[in-house]
Amino acid sequence: MALVEPVEENLEKETGRLEAFSDGVFAIAITLLVLDLKVPPIPTAGGTMQGLRVNLWQQWPNYFSLATSFFTILIMWMHHHAIFKHVRRTDAWLHFVNGLLLLLITFVPYPTAVVALYLKTPAAPMAVAFYAGAFVMIAIAFNLLLMAAFRKKLLARSVPAEFVARTRQSYLAGPPAYFMAMITAFYSVRVSLTICTLLWIFWATTVTKNTRA
Amino acid sequence: MALVEPVEENLEKETGRLEAFSDGVFAIAITLLVLDLKVPPIPTAGGTMQGLRVNLWQQWPNYFSLATSFFTILIMWMHHHAIFKHVRRTDAWLHFVNGLLLLLITFVPYPTAVVALYLKTPAAPMAVAFYAGAFVMIAIAFNLLLMAAFRKKLLARSVPAEFVARTRQSYLAGPPAYFMAMITAFYSVRVSLTICTLLWIFWATTVTKNTRA
Amino acid sequence: MALVEPVEENLEKETGRLEAFSDGVFAIAITLLVLDLKVPPIPTAGGTMQGLRVNLWQQWPNYFSLATSFFTILIMWMHHHAIFKHVRRTDAWLHFVNGLLLLLITFVPYPTAVVALYLKTPAAPMAVAFYAGAFVMIAIAFNLLLMAAFRKKLLARSVPAEFVARTRQSYLAGPPAYFMAMITAFYSVRVSLTICTLLWIFWATTVTKNTRA
Amino acid sequence: MALVEPVEENLEKETGRLEAFSDGVFAIAITLLVLDLKVPPIPTAGGTMQGLRVNLWQQWPNYFSLATSFFTILIMWMHHHAIFKHVRRTDAWLHFVNGLLLLLITFVPYPTAVVALYLKTPAAPMAVAFYAGAFVMIAIAFNLLLMAAFRKKLLARSVPAEFVARTRQSYLAGPPAYFMAMITAFYSVRVSLTICTLLWIFWATTVTKNTRA
Repeated sequence: MALVEPVEENLEKETGRLEAFSDGVFAIAITLLVLDLKVPPIPTAGGTMQGLRVNLWQQWPNYFSLATSFFTILIMWMHHHAIFKHVRRTDAWLHFVNGLLLLLITFVPYPTAVVALYLKTPAAPMAVAFYAGAFVMIAIAFNLLLMAAFRKKLLARSVPAEFVARTRQSYLAGPPAYFMAMITAFYSVRVSLTICTLLWIFWATTVTKNTRA
Repeated sequence: MALVEPVEENLEKETGRLEAFSDGVFAIAITLLVLDLKVPPIPTAGGTMQGLRVNLWQQWPNYFSLATSFFTILIMWMHHHAIFKHVRRTDAWLHFVNGLLLLLITFVPYPTAVVALYLKTPAAPMAVAFYAGAFVMIAIAFNLLLMAAFRKKLLARSVPAEFVARTRQSYLAGPPAYFMAMITAFYSVRVSLTICTLLWIFWATTVTKNTRA
Repeated sequence: MALVEPVEENLEKETGRLEAFSDGVFAIAITLLVLDLKVPPIPTAGGTMQGLRVNLWQQWPNYFSLATSFFTILIMWMHHHAIFKHVRRTDAWLHFVNGLLLLLITFVPYPTAVVALYLKTPAAPMAVAFYAGAFVMIAIAFNLLLMAAFRKKLLARSVPAEFVARTRQSYLAGPPAYFMAMITAFYSVRVSLTICTLLWIFWATTVTKNTRA
Repeated sequence: MALVEPVEENLEKETGRLEAFSDGVFAIAITLLVLDLKVPPIPTAGGTMQGLRVNLWQQWPNYFSLATSFFTILIMWMHHHAIFKHVRRTDAWLHFVNGLLLLLITFVPYPTAVVALYLKTPAAPMAVAFYAGAFVMIAIAFNLLLMAAFRKKLLARSVPAEFVARTRQSYLAGPPAYFMAMITAFYSVRVSLTICTLLWIFWATTVTKNTRA
């Protein structure tokens, strides 16, 4: 193997530490989500079977928000994984753009918690618009990452041009789609959240194809 | 080595990042457990030798719950480790099921804290049922993971069919056993917790055999 | 490859675990920053569209401080990465100095939070001096790390002496520059923070050159 | 290389994931220490230059306790590193003992915080005895780890018997030494803490020798 392509072999290591660092940030961000769950205090739950059952049940928006954020970050990790699979070298620009994306990913629990708290108040449209707005920024960061990573001098030589073009195109849909969800929030909170959910299912399917490519 | 099985060699890397990410989540979840321990404040402990000794001693349910959750997550990590040892490739379905399992693992500290707080209240049966119920879900997730991981196209060719069959069988016992513990909680909290503990000892021994296989 | 330089090949592993451990500390420190963001409580935000919008907006110093600390730690990680790229062996002294640097890096969120809280109070000069003072210590620690890591017996033989000399020189500028920013804080908070920001841009550009070398 | 010792080569990977997991736990435990530092609130510090300076200064026991715990965990990580450097295989018993040690390591911040809070109260001897007591347990766990790891079937064949004997002997000194520090706490808090500090310097020097061996 060393005889066939000595240069690529050596360069493998270059993205290794960047990926490991990014994996660490993803893993920590995804695990910190559980810190938002609070055990209902004994005075609130009344200390009775009935009281505890009702209190554990009433936390469902928090369970739901935990699960949503968890899979959101997981799918973003899979996309990150799928992109870096094809990258051999790194440079300062890639490090910077990757850092920007990681910053936004550690931020995800914050708008999620805002939605969980304000969903049943009159401020719900603002909370959901803030949430969708965070994903507008993440979608832009993913496009920047793709631009930085899929340059000829960084990519493995074996990556087919057709694959690069297809990936770029599917990522370009992100920012306008989330922007639409953000505007929609002021008309219907339900429709806005549905768009966000459908988009995650869409990203989950595209990463499946990319992973296989 | 490259000459003997070049394909398997290359595929090794495919599960590498999935395992590293999972290890990160396990390591963080297991370390965050300690955040539940709170230093007794000076007014509560009275600032006297006697007061501090009593206060540190009274925290024993928290020490116990910390140790239990710690070894619970550790044994689950060992099972995860034992499963992925035999897996060469990944696909989207394996990523998804693995994500589901990781979500439930980051959740473990929550039902543990509920039990620690409510064990001496009349709501104890509900708390223990909630705890056992969480493990019903984890046992189901482990079966899904095994189904996803032990498919022919993902497994290393060297894994003996007999081993696959034996592992599957031992995992199938999980969901009904924890379901039984959950129902038992409403009749006897003590018996239910004993079943849970015995099951962990059982899983610890099966992973020993699997690791050696 | 094993025939060409068997010693260096074997030694590669020696810094591996040190780097992985350091990466873990960097990744966790950078992710914990988000824990400083608090969702505005419903009574404060009033539960109205207007109230939530104003409250989310008023948190801008926290968003800004989060982003600043994030990129600060990221650039320090890149320098750490650039240094260890050339190191093959470790010894106790390198472990100790690396530990000192990691300690100071986990400390960064603390002076950042002090600045964020006190920026609009009469105590601002003291807060900014404390912040710049932390970076005086970090700059000293980076010089110690370079002294420990760039010893002949630890460096890879392929590293050019000219590169070592140039890196050392650029690091020496750090401590006096931050000390100047610290003194300046008592005359002008704005000028002091500007010096700190300019210095980060300077470090970002030097690491780019080092990474390419 | 594969031709020279194919068995050892393959087994390398076996401890890899155990070490990575342990590194993660060490890295997280060491980084979580900073969460104990709290920014002095504006009402307490008075918002004046003088007030903030005094308040930041008064936190020195917390800075000191942070630095102490940090280096304590770092030296324990270096010992862990030095032990596993020589281990090729793992089994269930090694996983269990390693887990016990990791549990105690995640626990370290707790007795440290107890000492920091109670050092100036009449309860100081109890707090320091609790702190030394935690290290009695850790010293025992390190002896168990050595017993588990340095069995013939797990060790690399190249490890000299003389090295194994010497390491074992130096570890045996741990439990009685910390037990002595624990008893001493009730007579003199100062002497007890001095013994603990001297012991850490001693461990730091032994790991230096082991690392070089």
